[in-house]
Amino acid sequence: MDLNADLGEGFGHWTLGDDNALLSVVTSANIACGYHAGDADTMRETCALAAESGTAVGAHVGYHDLAGFGRRFVDVAPDTLTNEVLAQLGALQTFARVAGTRISYVKPHGALYNTLVRHEAQADAVVDAVRMFDPTLAVLGPPGAVWLKRASVAGLRVWHEAFADRAYTSSGTLVPRTEPGAVLRDPAEIAARCVQLATEGWVRSVTGRPVRIQADSICVHGDTPGAVHIARTVRASLEAAGVTVTRVESPLRHARQPA
Amino acid sequence: MDLNADLGEGFGHWTLGDDNALLSVVTSANIACGYHAGDADTMRETCALAAESGTAVGAHVGYHDLAGFGRRFVDVAPDTLTNEVLAQLGALQTFARVAGTRISYVKPHGALYNTLVRHEAQADAVVDAVRMFDPTLAVLGPPGAVWLKRASVAGLRVWHEAFADRAYTSSGTLVPRTEPGAVLRDPAEIAARCVQLATEGWVRSVTGRPVRIQADSICVHGDTPGAVHIARTVRASLEAAGVTVTRVESPLRHARQPA
Amino acid sequence: MDLNADLGEGFGHWTLGDDNALLSVVTSANIACGYHAGDADTMRETCALAAESGTAVGAHVGYHDLAGFGRRFVDVAPDTLTNEVLAQLGALQTFARVAGTRISYVKPHGALYNTLVRHEAQADAVVDAVRMFDPTLAVLGPPGAVWLKRASVAGLRVWHEAFADRAYTSSGTLVPRTEPGAVLRDPAEIAARCVQLATEGWVRSVTGRPVRIQADSICVHGDTPGAVHIARTVRASLEAAGVTVTRVESPLRHARQPA
Amino acid sequence: MDLNADLGEGFGHWTLGDDNALLSVVTSANIACGYHAGDADTMRETCALAAESGTAVGAHVGYHDLAGFGRRFVDVAPDTLTNEVLAQLGALQTFARVAGTRISYVKPHGALYNTLVRHEAQADAVVDAVRMFDPTLAVLGPPGAVWLKRASVAGLRVWHEAFADRAYTSSGTLVPRTEPGAVLRDPAEIAARCVQLATEGWVRSVTGRPVRIQADSICVHGDTPGAVHIARTVRASLEAAGVTVTRVESPLRHARQPA
Repeated sequence: MDLNADLGEGFGHWTLGDDNALLSVVTSANIACGYHAGDADTMRETCALAAESGTAVGAHVGYHDLAGFGRRFVDVAPDTLTNEVLAQLGALQTFARVAGTRISYVKPHGALYNTLVRHEAQADAVVDAVRMFDPTLAVLGPPGAVWLKRASVAGLRVWHEAFADRAYTSSGTLVPRTEPGAVLRDPAEIAARCVQLATEGWVRSVTGRPVRIQADSICVHGDTPGAVHIARTVRASLEAAGVTVTRVESPLRHARQPA
Repeated sequence: MDLNADLGEGFGHWTLGDDNALLSVVTSANIACGYHAGDADTMRETCALAAESGTAVGAHVGYHDLAGFGRRFVDVAPDTLTNEVLAQLGALQTFARVAGTRISYVKPHGALYNTLVRHEAQADAVVDAVRMFDPTLAVLGPPGAVWLKRASVAGLRVWHEAFADRAYTSSGTLVPRTEPGAVLRDPAEIAARCVQLATEGWVRSVTGRPVRIQADSICVHGDTPGAVHIARTVRASLEAAGVTVTRVESPLRHARQPA
Repeated sequence: MDLNADLGEGFGHWTLGDDNALLSVVTSANIACGYHAGDADTMRETCALAAESGTAVGAHVGYHDLAGFGRRFVDVAPDTLTNEVLAQLGALQTFARVAGTRISYVKPHGALYNTLVRHEAQADAVVDAVRMFDPTLAVLGPPGAVWLKRASVAGLRVWHEAFADRAYTSSGTLVPRTEPGAVLRDPAEIAARCVQLATEGWVRSVTGRPVRIQADSICVHGDTPGAVHIARTVRASLEAAGVTVTRVESPLRHARQPA
Repeated sequence: MDLNADLGEGFGHWTLGDDNALLSVVTSANIACGYHAGDADTMRETCALAAESGTAVGAHVGYHDLAGFGRRFVDVAPDTLTNEVLAQLGALQTFARVAGTRISYVKPHGALYNTLVRHEAQADAVVDAVRMFDPTLAVLGPPGAVWLKRASVAGLRVWHEAFADRAYTSSGTLVPRTEPGAVLRDPAEIAARCVQLATEGWVRSVTGRPVRIQADSICVHGDTPGAVHIARTVRASLEAAGVTVTRVESPLRHARQPA
């Protein structure tokens, strides 16, 4: 099982989260590419840290909205969105290369993540960008998202993720944050769910029914001390249960990728 | 002789210059990379136009200052400058690749262009970025600039440029814009100077003395209708004088470059 | 009848439209406040020009989206939108004051203009900002917009505008730009419609039926040479028909406004 | 004696420092105005907190450089700098007014603070902006700064500040941060110096000689837990020594200011 988290989300003088702590926990790093967070310095440093620790580099692409941290839907034209994703991939790939690694996968951030679940035009726009940039890249998102279906049709490899600290409905979708019980807070409970997910492929829904969740990766957070503690507990519990925590694919594979 | 000009200098809804007209005149396009001008859409489109017309793609890198169009010195830390140039090169290279071409050379813009003539720390910072990104890239600037000397020591290929419409002192430096006669305006005079430069390697200085100027490329402008007319006149006069107007190196060479 | 147009829409090195030409035509200037276009220099200069020519100053407030020129819906939180409108009003008022004039009215720009026709939360957010800033300001928009109804309830003065070059449906709404005949191009036809609107209070709809349009102001454009010509023709025709072209309220009124 | 500190230095999703803690310590708040830090939401909230706690509102104006947090010299044209300071004052004043208070003074931030010590053209530019905006505002800076001399000549009230945690040379200037002993770290020592400064008007220089320092205000920091502890210790020690810690002028005075 892969563990992924958001990293490199500072901007200029501002920092966010404890990247060093997270890099000792996760196997895949979603690195901000400068559009919703991150800048040239953070991309350089985070790629270097990821390369040193053998963590897979994911391009965490977002809307062009630093002021809103990419958390607001922007009705950007699909052609522009394609080009903005290309620009983000190009910048991050450069820092990955300089650090001796490469981008392995693409994960949309924030409002773009949520929008691509259903918005067909923006979904196609992002798939086009990934395909043009490097058709061997994987795409990472929630099971059922429109953009992952389009990515699959376009020949991209699709990875699905589950959320360690979120409740699921009986139909396998996330309970909206506005509803009670949407976010789990107990480290032991969260870790136990992750173990069940990794070993048996299901979790109990918010109404108590078992739900099948096929996940290649589990998303954890690191923006508070409590979140880092949860992430560590999840990893320790997975390993104690005999689950190998490892990135989805080995870095060697990349040697065969085209420039 | 190569002719270069600045292209892709719009931003969002704003446009600047007549890129289509210029692309029928010049052989090298200095394309803005989003830090002082340009955005994902303009990079995509300008690279596509350059590829179609066989124009060499130059990365026109600048300070991170859209509000000032990169024309104000910014006392940015050298490490940050290195990373910001890397980010610009990475973004532009992506659009060049998508268009079926590649970056051939790097030319600093505006205040960065002027600063690198003497500022050693920023000069080293830009050279480091180019070397890390792709050591087969050329760098383009004015004869005598500190940054070109550092680039040469670092093993980068160095191209020198002259300015079609600027007066030179007897020591071969540009007459500052604040002095009378600094900028030439007569298309015929400008064209005649360019022919002399290309065929005999010298121009007459502002005080009337001949000055040797070794140039691989002549810089022309396109931000006004008058400027485009001058650029066309320069090209026509060079060709009438038997000078081959062509990019410094053929695109074929790039096939041997590493990824 | 008042004539209004968008002014001060440059940013940094980029310019847009012919502000000087427009200022000899219109009686109200919608001045960009730096969020979708405009910067400190353009606000200073445009306010000075408006003051000199006796043109009413309108705050042309928009989404925080320079890259998109404010033409893309942004799902900004209402509290943030209130604060962003306050910041825009505060900046523009300062430049108006320095120029010896004051803001007379507020007109939303681009995607915000369209959104406020129906989006209640954002409509309330903008009304709150205007009311907090100065409850004696007027608000300008299309008849029927939700935000104008809320503004009226909140005690703000409401001004309605018609569009010189746009076709109307039989129910008095604009024909969407995506439909044929949505935009009128013939200066004489446009001017004749404006005269009819100003003198008789109706125009012929796209299907040929007369539609009542109550307008305090007519919006003209200036972003192309053709647009400036149309604006001039509209004004000349109105005056030839005996219509007094004047701002909605006299500048004297402002002397009684609170600080 | 007045105590001042920087507040409202977040941006979007990013936060910085412990504003609530500082507001229980200082009597004057230097509030970021959106150019080097801060946005519409932080200005609104910080002004409200300052108003509630009776803290004087200072406009902490800076270069237009969010990416550099205003800590890099930008060679901005004086006219543009004047306008950019006006825009910052206008925005902040609006939020101060909405909160029921007003700007009391202007303090430049970061690289602008350092530049104005000697750079005459930028000094005049900032003085012009303050004078145009409201000639009853005070300006706050280090003794001897060129810009404060110009401000005094222009008729502005000038307040001088000392730094709680910085060593001084025997000539009364700050020991540069690059030299050993430039920054003091012991809360007790810092507090004792502040008491001496407030009660006797001198501190011991880095070479051991007494130096006269006339200060209306002492600048403390709040960007780390340690800094907040120091600030609290300084205030407690001043009060224990019988020094009244109070803003330079009472808020009542503002009632007589023009709009």
